[in-house]
Amino acid sequence: MSYELHYWPTIQGRGEFVRLALEAAGAPYVDVARGAVSAGLGMPAMQRLMQDEAQTHPPFAPPFLKDGELLVGQTAAILHHLGPRLKLVGRSEAVRTWTQQIQLTICDMVTEAHDTHHPVGAGLYYEEQKPEALRRAREFCQARLPKFLQWHEAVLLRNPAGPRHLVGGRLSYADLSLFQLVQGLRYAFPRAAARTLRTTPAVVALHDRVAALPRVAAYLASPRRIAFNEQGIFRHYPELDLG
Amino acid sequence: MSYELHYWPTIQGRGEFVRLALEAAGAPYVDVARGAVSAGLGMPAMQRLMQDEAQTHPPFAPPFLKDGELLVGQTAAILHHLGPRLKLVGRSEAVRTWTQQIQLTICDMVTEAHDTHHPVGAGLYYEEQKPEALRRAREFCQARLPKFLQWHEAVLLRNPAGPRHLVGGRLSYADLSLFQLVQGLRYAFPRAAARTLRTTPAVVALHDRVAALPRVAAYLASPRRIAFNEQGIFRHYPELDLG
Repeated sequence: MSYELHYWPTIQGRGEFVRLALEAAGAPYVDVARGAVSAGLGMPAMQRLMQDEAQTHPPFAPPFLKDGELLVGQTAAILHHLGPRLKLVGRSEAVRTWTQQIQLTICDMVTEAHDTHHPVGAGLYYEEQKPEALRRAREFCQARLPKFLQWHEAVLLRNPAGPRHLVGGRLSYADLSLFQLVQGLRYAFPRAAARTLRTTPAVVALHDRVAALPRVAAYLASPRRIAFNEQGIFRHYPELDLG
Repeated sequence: MSYELHYWPTIQGRGEFVRLALEAAGAPYVDVARGAVSAGLGMPAMQRLMQDEAQTHPPFAPPFLKDGELLVGQTAAILHHLGPRLKLVGRSEAVRTWTQQIQLTICDMVTEAHDTHHPVGAGLYYEEQKPEALRRAREFCQARLPKFLQWHEAVLLRNPAGPRHLVGGRLSYADLSLFQLVQGLRYAFPRAAARTLRTTPAVVALHDRVAALPRVAAYLASPRRIAFNEQGIFRHYPELDLG
């Protein structure tokens, strides 16, 4: 049976963290909102679920995952749910919680990256908040981006099983998410990201290893991978790349 | 054995969600950074842990919890870890994930409430970003606050076990967190919160029931409860209360 991933159809956004896990595991899934309306998919199918008042576990926002009868929202909760099913997390409760903690820290950074172009609020266009964005991006590029990536570098270097993975000796969804974070930062803030990544070689090496995983490489080269763009979370506005 | 809660000693902040769970369960804990330096506690004890380079699970930021040898950071991950131990979550994996999903949505709203007074970044004072704060607070009060609280109202009303709890038929850490969210919103945005809460009677009733739980009531009346103030996440700046 296929998983159903529900997310905005034209951006990578937060849905990409879930998509990467499904792709890396070779799991069958339907990317619902990107499907054909004539096949009962597309945005109407996603909206039907979001507006279904009989839904006892309503998601607050996409992404959400339908796994049989179960509906799960919130990126980190979806990955926590999928982890054991896709063998993308260790078995023990302690290892699952640590992986979750790393994922939540990545999610925090994703929110902060988003807020560089939307510091005043998601209800307005970037063009309506450019001066505020400039101030927020300066703090992000100069303080937050280095702090977050250096934390991940420390996690890798201190991993008792070695620096090849964030948790233990094998691939977890946190590794995939860190890969995606590096991809997004390099797209949105090429100069600022490069400056910090020069100081975090273990993060870069992890990124490169994930990119070379056969299933991930095949996915990245496929039309299923949406290109970065200026409607997503990671947007390249050169004026905000205060590297 | 006592849990060790590590959090900034002068604000409720994110630590309060953990503190409420520990208090409501009657669990023994040490509020480390609020303890006496002479007893080996206080801020130096918290900072020692944060700066300990031998720590293989370094927290990115407070709050974090020490449970024996285990160190757990990120509010939602801490509560996910504590839930079964404090009997503040259902037993099944599906129920735990749903409770976590609600908690993550509450955490998102906490971040957005914080960003009303710090839209440009946490590294600057409120006084350095007042015009930006005004714009962000307008969107928060008029769009986000109602949207979040109405989502919680729907979760309560759709709960198959009845609207007394967010999940199933008994108290969970998500109920405690929603109580704290209402407390914070009423403090920071009295007019905007009142306007929305008039439309969410199930949320208000849950808040009142939690406040009346004997252990919670005793805690709230004790000196262990730090008062809201303008260094915390929920700050009362009347100009931002765009009710």
